[in-house]
Amino acid sequence: MRCDLLAVGTELLLGQIVDTNSAWIATQLAAMGIDTMEQRTVGDNEERIVTALTEMLARADAVIVGGGLGPTQDDLTREALARLAGVPLRRRPELEAHIREVFAARGREMAVSNLRQADLPEGAAAIPNPFGTAPGIRLELGSGAGSLAGKVVYAVPGVPDEMRPMVTRHVLPDLVARSGTPAVIRSRSLRTWGVAESALAELIADRVEAQTNPTIAFLARGIEGIIVRITAKARDEREAGALLDAEEAVLRARLGDLCFGRDDETMESVVLDRLAARGWTLAVAESVTGGLVTARLTSVAGASRVLRGGVVAYATEVKRAVLGVRAERVVSGPAAVEMAAGVRRALGADVGIAITGVAGPELQEGRPVGTVWFGLALPGRPEESVTVRLPGDRERVRQFGAISLLNLLRLRLDADGGNPGP
Amino acid sequence: MRCDLLAVGTELLLGQIVDTNSAWIATQLAAMGIDTMEQRTVGDNEERIVTALTEMLARADAVIVGGGLGPTQDDLTREALARLAGVPLRRRPELEAHIREVFAARGREMAVSNLRQADLPEGAAAIPNPFGTAPGIRLELGSGAGSLAGKVVYAVPGVPDEMRPMVTRHVLPDLVARSGTPAVIRSRSLRTWGVAESALAELIADRVEAQTNPTIAFLARGIEGIIVRITAKARDEREAGALLDAEEAVLRARLGDLCFGRDDETMESVVLDRLAARGWTLAVAESVTGGLVTARLTSVAGASRVLRGGVVAYATEVKRAVLGVRAERVVSGPAAVEMAAGVRRALGADVGIAITGVAGPELQEGRPVGTVWFGLALPGRPEESVTVRLPGDRERVRQFGAISLLNLLRLRLDADGGNPGP
Repeated sequence: MRCDLLAVGTELLLGQIVDTNSAWIATQLAAMGIDTMEQRTVGDNEERIVTALTEMLARADAVIVGGGLGPTQDDLTREALARLAGVPLRRRPELEAHIREVFAARGREMAVSNLRQADLPEGAAAIPNPFGTAPGIRLELGSGAGSLAGKVVYAVPGVPDEMRPMVTRHVLPDLVARSGTPAVIRSRSLRTWGVAESALAELIADRVEAQTNPTIAFLARGIEGIIVRITAKARDEREAGALLDAEEAVLRARLGDLCFGRDDETMESVVLDRLAARGWTLAVAESVTGGLVTARLTSVAGASRVLRGGVVAYATEVKRAVLGVRAERVVSGPAAVEMAAGVRRALGADVGIAITGVAGPELQEGRPVGTVWFGLALPGRPEESVTVRLPGDRERVRQFGAISLLNLLRLRLDADGGNPGP
Repeated sequence: MRCDLLAVGTELLLGQIVDTNSAWIATQLAAMGIDTMEQRTVGDNEERIVTALTEMLARADAVIVGGGLGPTQDDLTREALARLAGVPLRRRPELEAHIREVFAARGREMAVSNLRQADLPEGAAAIPNPFGTAPGIRLELGSGAGSLAGKVVYAVPGVPDEMRPMVTRHVLPDLVARSGTPAVIRSRSLRTWGVAESALAELIADRVEAQTNPTIAFLARGIEGIIVRITAKARDEREAGALLDAEEAVLRARLGDLCFGRDDETMESVVLDRLAARGWTLAVAESVTGGLVTARLTSVAGASRVLRGGVVAYATEVKRAVLGVRAERVVSGPAAVEMAAGVRRALGADVGIAITGVAGPELQEGRPVGTVWFGLALPGRPEESVTVRLPGDRERVRQFGAISLLNLLRLRLDADGGNPGP
């Protein structure tokens, strides 16, 4: 099964927005074992949409078209599909009623042009849109399309929030059904951090090689780590869940503490959950990262139950006056420990963590760019410092330093309370 | 002149990385008045690269190919170009010497496969790569390409840092020269903040309508504002500079303080420069933004000459104990002023700024999500608070709040020292 992707939108051709939809859909298809060989973008032009689809469907079994389903005269995907299929557009009364209801519910006037969204090529099926007025379209080409008969086109909106549920709930299952495999497909993501993709692959090489169902894929997420994605095909939800549970158990045993969470969990949400479970509050002292650690933590709704706050001690005098740092060198292990203990005391928290280092472009205190010290002050453990040398430029050292500190705290929280080692 | 774009890379088809290059190149082409009608992505497959180029060049005058120029067996753009042109690949001694020099300078062993990067299709020109070993390729198709003779292909690396200077310095001038317009093209970006694109367009509508040379384009940058880009074509550098200077003066007079900077300047770099010019230091108190303001400021190399640090006062008790906030309600004007004055005092800075507010998802102190108060404490001005109601979800309120505070400080620094408005 080969399914290629066509994005429609003049704003994409002008570079006014970056097409993130194609990459997202591509990862979904890859996880299902469906091939994608071509992605294409054309403007809001009926002729060019038809030409692109004709060329693409000559090679692919299916094409997903994103965009061009809105209510304005610029939105021409419906017209292009009808022309491709050699059939007329027909207004669907049930879709018209839905659009009128949505506007009435929002208490807004409806321009007549909105009803264009109720027009579908004859023989097409509507894909429900829970978050907007424009339905998606599933169109299997018939004899009117000549040599393309039997191929299928899915049209989805360009708005990511409307597109994603349509692809997940309707397009992917339909593609999977057409490829002759069972109907229920479920995925689970294990989130890992602190290991290269090649080393990760080696750890679970036999599972990856033996994979038939569930399948296992790696998705690199830059400084956020690598996702190990497990995808199971089954006859029903329960069977899929059982397959995922079994594979997750095997993989977690191998991955150990490299795996920090699952699905929507982030490093910061996991750290906050772990602290909340112990009833501990947190304070953060930052130098080199300049607020990135607290910014990550406060991105989680409900962070206030754990996080008391932080001090960005950028100037040396602030480290001394506010955090009580006495160490002569402020990029050092002793300084990092004093920062952690100092912010814990100053903000009245149970746990204090700290980071100091050199982001560049220049050396500091003779230490090379990328030198970073972490400080930890946790109840029932000796205060400690850990140092690493991070690669990359200023922004990468800062970003990497921030998540590294959170990961270090996670490891300590998971370890035996009295065990000082990593 | 129509120039379409082809991205090559299996990792793009798998969705492992998002193609940001195409959007970037597209904005550059649009600024030059060169049309783009199609963008396409294919994998690392010689056959499919040739097919794509053949189809694309049947419609376009030129195609820019990104990616597939590396040293591994996966990198097949060179082979595809040679096949398309119906010519052999030839190793260029001067390119081979350059590659050997780069490795020698880095003190690294060179695998023989790296010399593949010295192979160019016969008749092609190398595009210098100041940041890597792989040269770009400029190939005008000859009689060996049949009906495509006279069309031109540019191949550039997929790595953005290597691709961008090649496009700016070589590909764009070459395209412009081919389209028969003068040889020197220069752009300047005026960065604006705090105004909608429609309102901005209205302010300078007559300049936009009258544009022939320089031309004026708008580039929306989300919460970072809107860029007004001026592009001049001229016979030489001096003439281009004079055209840009004249248009910039007219636009700046219209835009007033909506324009915060030029080209690579950011809101945070501008604020730091303004403070440095007065010899003032800065301290930041944050609640709702949780460190985003200081994280932005510390992203600028050299921020330490101005920024002393910040306090993330997330818990109410931290606002009271560390910053000395006495106001009963902590999401209020009086609290914002006390935070600004408190952090200025605690960190020993000349200027204190603060933000408190409600990011959601829940109300706080009965205030709706998006309610934000800014506090300012500057030398020679009364302390003041400003409130706004920001739209959007939690992350948007936080991001928008952070840049809004920096913009407010910029406006105050630019205003008369004794003037408390606007």
